[in-house]
Formats: sequence, structure tokens, C-alpha cells
Amino acid sequence: MESDRELLPCRDDILAVRRRIASHIHITPVMSSETLNRMFHAQLYFKCENFQKAGAFKIRGATNAIVSLGAAGRLRGVATHSSGNHAQALALAARRQGIKAYIVMPENAPAVKVNAVKDYGGIIRFCPPTLQARESTLRAVIAETGASEIHPYNDYRIIAGQSTASAELLEHCGDLELLLAPVGGGGLLSGAILAARYFSPLTKVYGAEPAMADDAWRSFRSGSLVPSVNPQTVADGLRTSLGTLTFPVIMEGAEDILTVSEAGIIKAMVLIWERMKIVAEPSAAVPLAAVMEHPDVFYGKRTGIILSGGNADIRNLPL
Amino acid sequence: MESDRELLPCRDDILAVRRRIASHIHITPVMSSETLNRMFHAQLYFKCENFQKAGAFKIRGATNAIVSLGAAGRLRGVATHSSGNHAQALALAARRQGIKAYIVMPENAPAVKVNAVKDYGGIIRFCPPTLQARESTLRAVIAETGASEIHPYNDYRIIAGQSTASAELLEHCGDLELLLAPVGGGGLLSGAILAARYFSPLTKVYGAEPAMADDAWRSFRSGSLVPSVNPQTVADGLRTSLGTLTFPVIMEGAEDILTVSEAGIIKAMVLIWERMKIVAEPSAAVPLAAVMEHPDVFYGKRTGIILSGGNADIRNLPL
Repeated sequence: MESDRELLPCRDDILAVRRRIASHIHITPVMSSETLNRMFHAQLYFKCENFQKAGAFKIRGATNAIVSLGAAGRLRGVATHSSGNHAQALALAARRQGIKAYIVMPENAPAVKVNAVKDYGGIIRFCPPTLQARESTLRAVIAETGASEIHPYNDYRIIAGQSTASAELLEHCGDLELLLAPVGGGGLLSGAILAARYFSPLTKVYGAEPAMADDAWRSFRSGSLVPSVNPQTVADGLRTSLGTLTFPVIMEGAEDILTVSEAGIIKAMVLIWERMKIVAEPSAAVPLAAVMEHPDVFYGKRTGIILSGGNADIRNLPL
Repeated sequence: MESDRELLPCRDDILAVRRRIASHIHITPVMSSETLNRMFHAQLYFKCENFQKAGAFKIRGATNAIVSLGAAGRLRGVATHSSGNHAQALALAARRQGIKAYIVMPENAPAVKVNAVKDYGGIIRFCPPTLQARESTLRAVIAETGASEIHPYNDYRIIAGQSTASAELLEHCGDLELLLAPVGGGGLLSGAILAARYFSPLTKVYGAEPAMADDAWRSFRSGSLVPSVNPQTVADGLRTSLGTLTFPVIMEGAEDILTVSEAGIIKAMVLIWERMKIVAEPSAAVPLAAVMEHPDVFYGKRTGIILSGGNADIRNLPL
């Protein structure tokens, strides 16, 4: 893992990443809803990464990490531990480029997630459902195969990849006053901060986070990295804690972290489904929940929202 | 109600309707899914009327009927009996043009539907939940107010309005081999037939219908209008029977009517939600169910599908 601040992606890096990954991802649409705008007294522009390949923004970072590998690295493949959207994205991005992806998943992962990774050609290694087992299994896989670890967020190649979603949104909308992204490990939010800094410096960037997994809020307030311990939020994509690379970017560049209630997340998700007629997973509804629960911040503002993914299990919704 | 065949909308009528309603409706997007195309060995182009105003194609016909009123008719308003998408569409179309809409609804209609009509400014008259009571209440409202009845489908103004969805899809896609629309009362399917006849005469038009509400299939096979009696399909928008104006258009112009199972409708709806990440109501999934259950018809074919609406009750899904 690179930790040298000099390797923080610069403006030209992000422009280069956009070109490099262009043929591997969708340029997703930006949608608005008159009803939601009226309801919340704001102009909301949703960057629909639920329509992205593999159903979430994660394919952007995964693709960038893979295209950044050298010839020897490509031959040995990539590896990660994840049971979420990063696992699916890495498997799909690797398959598209003809390289192997080893995915370490807990043996109790839902069948729907295991099958999605298999469908995308990922090579699954099961392990006991503890963080320790996941990390030791991943180390064993890497020792055995020589694969490159692709961390889901604590990696500048990933952060630069995720920043392209915000760069596209800022370019599409012109002069956004606010930009709002959900925050779990912080890859997407760090990317949003860099994109705004380089391409729309007057845009203020906020993170939106479940109060039940408020490590980013606590870290931002205290100025030091405070991890979450076993958070139970319904927003399953946001249970991870900030990393050593994402925390400083967020500390320096975020306007604030806004926390939201579990009821607010569900309500916002249902609003997106019923009013916009699109499928958002709970984590992707966290920014709209922040608009609902922090109305003063957004009143009358042109606000970009990264609608991060649509991988909800329709038959098992948390309603 | 006009029943003179000479009043069947002609090519120029439909072009004129497109211009007349353009500022009142959305030009909805056309979406495709690589996954669904691979799964069904066809190229499917979905006209996303779930993103239409009031969540369904119905606003097209309702708007056209209202802009067709004279000054006196506008003053007196419009009336219909419906608890479905037509009621919401008529209420919204009327409000946009500053006229009154009287909506007769059964007193046991779901609160979510009653509230939607109220939100769009409709004036609701409740009645006992029988067809007879709905019709007699509607006649009383009309006698009292002088409002013009706007039937949900057995009206050439409505048929011409609905045809614009197909006209847009045919124009967008170029040379579609097949065009597929769900059939309830037959307004949407009649409109699809007219649009194909005038703007893409090589395109074959099919209707898709729940086997549990197969009045169109039986009418088409027998050559005479056979109404449905209290059908119970989950596709609640397709429980109505063909009308005296829609049946002859379908009899003459449809290639065939394809029936589908209830399980197929649910499976297709879940596929649309999970793979395309958009919200389709059960009725809108009936055409994809037809592609699933009649694969020989669609194999290798460029097929347009009218995805008719997205007004599903998320908290009460039939899964």
C-alpha cells in the first residue's frame, strides 16, 4: 500500500484515469426528480452509479487498479477480501482484461453475493467469518499465487478511479454548489474531494454516513482515525472504517460529515424507488437521507449526489 | 364515445398529437441490458414509461384527450372511474392545464392510490366497489357537473395519445423487427399497432397478456369480443377487457397475443429490478415474461418493449 502523500493523485492523473478506464465502464446518466426537489427545497442531481457495470461505482477503481498493473502483475492476477460490491467489481474488471481475481469471502456470505462473484468469473476462497480469518486467508492466497492485493479503498489507484464518478457529475452539471457522497472506507468520498478540488474548486464536498457507523464523523471531529467496531447499520456497504490514505484527504477536504438515522435511510431508499423509479441499495440512499435530516445545509442549493449502487436484494428488503 | 371507423387516427393525427402533447410529457429514455440480451438471445429495447410523468404512459392519452377539449368542455372539466394509473394521469394532466378532474374510485381503493390522485389535485368521489356502482356514480357526477368522460382506453383520443410512446421508440431504434406491448383494455397495444403501421410497416406488433386475464387472447382467437370476468392476475393494470374501439384495431393489426404465467410475471419483474436497476410494476413486466415464455418468437430479433409503468407499492410487493 502506498502511503507517500506525494503519490496523492493529481489533476492530470485523474484525467488520465478517465481516459484509461473509459472503454471499460459506463458513463452513467444524471437524473433529477421534480418531486424530490420540491419536497426538499433543493436542486438534486443524482449520478446514477446503480446503472454502472456490476451495479455500483466500484468497477471504476477496480478497473483502474488492474490497468495499472505491469505485465508480471497481470500474469499473477489480483486478490482481495470482500463480500460486497468491490468483490463483484474486481472479479468483473479482471475477467474483462483476461486476468485472474481471487476473492476471499466469509463462508456465511449470502448466496446471492457468492453467485454474483462466481458469475463474473471470480475465484472464491472461503474462510471463517472473522476479520482475522479474512486477512490471514488473503495473505495465504497472495503467498501461494503471487497475486496483487487490491484493497477496496485504501489505495490511491482505487481513489483515483472512484474520483471519475464525481468528475463526470461536476462536468455534466456545471456549477454545483454542493457535492454529497456516502462514506464507508472513504474511497468514494476522497475521490469526490479530489475531483472537486481539481475541476470545480467552489463546490463544497460533504460525506453522508449512518449514525450507527459514524467512524468518519468521529474521526473528522476528533482529528484522529477512530475505527468502527462491528457496526450494524442497514447500509451494509458503509460498515467499513476509514483508511490511512482516505482519512487525511477527508480531514483536509471535506466540508463536514453528516450522520443519518436508520429510519431516514429506509425512508430515503423508498423515496428513490417510488419517486425516481430506480433501484438504490440502502448505502446509496444515505446521501438523500442526509438531505432530509439536515435541511439547512441544502436549502436552495444545487447539489450533486453520488447514487453509489443498486445491488439490493429485492426479495429481502429491509422495509 | 366515437365508434365511427373513419375517426381512427391517421398518420398525420399521430404526428399532430406528438407535437400537441410534447410540452406536457417526458420523452422517456430507451434502455437495454447486455445481461438480459444474453439471457434471452434477443436484442431488447425498453421504452421506459416508468420514468414518465405520474409513473406510466397513461399521461400521454390523458393529456391528448384534455388538449382536444373545446373551451366549454375545459370549463366543465373531465371525469373518469379508475383506481389505477389512468386516474393519476388524468388528475395530473387536468391540473397542468388548469381544469377540474373528477375521479370516481371504489371506497376500498388502497390509500396509496387515493393519495396519489389527491396529490395530483383530482376531486375524488367514492362509491361502493362494484363496476355497476362505479358506472352509476360516474353518470351522476357527469350529470351534475357537465364534465366530459375520458374513458381509459375506448377513446380514439386516448389511443392516439398512447401511440406516441411506440412512435418515439420506433423512431429512436430505427428498424425494429418486433414491437411488444402489454394488453389490458388495449389502448397501448392499439396505439403500438397504429404507430408501426404508419412509421415502421415492417415491424410486427405483439400483445402480451397474463394467462389469468386472457380476454384479448380469446377475443383474438375467436374473432369476437370476449370480456374477462373478475380476473385475479397480479398484473393489476391488465385486468380490464378490450373495448369496442380497441378490439378491431388489434384484430386487424396484431401479429399475435402471447399469454404468460403469474410466476413468469414475477420472475420478469424481479429481473428488471435486479438487472436493469429500474422499478417496473407487475403489468410492465408482462412483455419480458412473454420473451421468457415464448423464446422462439424472439430468438435473435431486434425487439422493442413498452415498459408501461413503475407504480409498484414497494412495501407490498407480490414476491
